[in-house]
Amino acid sequence: MALPPPLADAEHRFLRDIAQRVVDCAGAIDDDRLEDWPDHFAEDCVYRIQTREAHAKGWPIGLIHCEGRAMLRDRVLAIRHGNVFDPHGYRHVVSLPRFAPGERGAGPKLASRRVLTSFNVSRVMRTGETTLFAVGTYDDTFAEVDGQWLIRERLVLLDSRNLDTLLVLPI
Amino acid sequence: MALPPPLADAEHRFLRDIAQRVVDCAGAIDDDRLEDWPDHFAEDCVYRIQTREAHAKGWPIGLIHCEGRAMLRDRVLAIRHGNVFDPHGYRHVVSLPRFAPGERGAGPKLASRRVLTSFNVSRVMRTGETTLFAVGTYDDTFAEVDGQWLIRERLVLLDSRNLDTLLVLPI
Amino acid sequence: MALPPPLADAEHRFLRDIAQRVVDCAGAIDDDRLEDWPDHFAEDCVYRIQTREAHAKGWPIGLIHCEGRAMLRDRVLAIRHGNVFDPHGYRHVVSLPRFAPGERGAGPKLASRRVLTSFNVSRVMRTGETTLFAVGTYDDTFAEVDGQWLIRERLVLLDSRNLDTLLVLPI
Repeated sequence: MALPPPLADAEHRFLRDIAQRVVDCAGAIDDDRLEDWPDHFAEDCVYRIQTREAHAKGWPIGLIHCEGRAMLRDRVLAIRHGNVFDPHGYRHVVSLPRFAPGERGAGPKLASRRVLTSFNVSRVMRTGETTLFAVGTYDDTFAEVDGQWLIRERLVLLDSRNLDTLLVLPI
Repeated sequence: MALPPPLADAEHRFLRDIAQRVVDCAGAIDDDRLEDWPDHFAEDCVYRIQTREAHAKGWPIGLIHCEGRAMLRDRVLAIRHGNVFDPHGYRHVVSLPRFAPGERGAGPKLASRRVLTSFNVSRVMRTGETTLFAVGTYDDTFAEVDGQWLIRERLVLLDSRNLDTLLVLPI
Repeated sequence: MALPPPLADAEHRFLRDIAQRVVDCAGAIDDDRLEDWPDHFAEDCVYRIQTREAHAKGWPIGLIHCEGRAMLRDRVLAIRHGNVFDPHGYRHVVSLPRFAPGERGAGPKLASRRVLTSFNVSRVMRTGETTLFAVGTYDDTFAEVDGQWLIRERLVLLDSRNLDTLLVLPI
């Protein structure tokens, strides 16, 4: 494949804004402000977690599947009030976002362009035990709402195929 | 909480400059140029390391507490000449900085705004053994000195509660 | 060492473009688009992997040494068709690039300036086992080709001294 053209200024600004959205969104999870997490998504959003292998095979069912910001809020309430699990927290560290192949130089339309962001997530248990919990990619599209880019569809693609049962917090 | 307004251009430029400060500062530690590390701090800086739990409980004493750039330089000298410890190095990988909640859209004043940066630190021992050593957040404020933003106050908030005794290098 | 001067606008834009190059290049490896990986390098590139210790001692031989984009393409073909190894993938997470010491404020010439980028790489085996595989620094220079910055020389400096035998994919 030939290298795509240089990014236009509008594309640079878009990626700059997306980069900020991604770290603000991850920060809400990591800093235990889960109630703020759904605010980073559009009202009619889709949020899914799937392993790379399951995604490549076209399996329809993910580890988590939420449709609409209201469902994200329900999930947060369930975490706060309903579920029983060992207390733990995450810490995301992310690279800069990049356009998915074929999405660069694709004209002025930025909404719906797929943007990929590599991440790793460390999990800290109450005992202080810290492990590399998950690595993967956010595969996102965005919608412009009131002058801001919100996450319209997020597919969390996990490189690791086997998660233990403890998948409570969003990634 | 409603989503804060989009970042103003001045805020974008500020975060861009802060992002560079944070990686330059971490690079001085990782690349074994410890003598350059204090240069990234203001003369009357405060540098502390504390666990998230201790901070939430309001405990006054951190794992490390330095006041003033001169004290940071003393610490570097002690590492170089005084302390006895197993040789090791760090490698920081950091996300982009983000404003702390409530600090976005807070007007033109940028000095003293709290900026959070997620990080993880790998530790490499002389034997080559590499482990995920610490994860957490820089909780920073900055001062403008000669046209540059220097770290005025840095609280290194560690997500992991239990560190082993080997906390020699700054984080 | 006194702190170098603030970055000029041209330096900021350069680092912004380099940051995108670095994550696009790492993404080609991680997303299993290895065939795209050589496109991020100049035709007369040099690509080497060396441990920090071997580099400091001036040892001429690295773990991997490729000269020219054609040799990078050969390597990809060998990985796809020739080698026998346990299937595995990488996930890079990188910090923002920074100028090497002495390279800031060095005038208008940007080509050949050394730029450092800290990274960590997780390795995911077919079994799903995920480990922190390598940490280190890209020590890069760039060449402007058709309005884009391509990697002219990349030295992958590994902080960890001992790699197991499985170094198949590029880092």
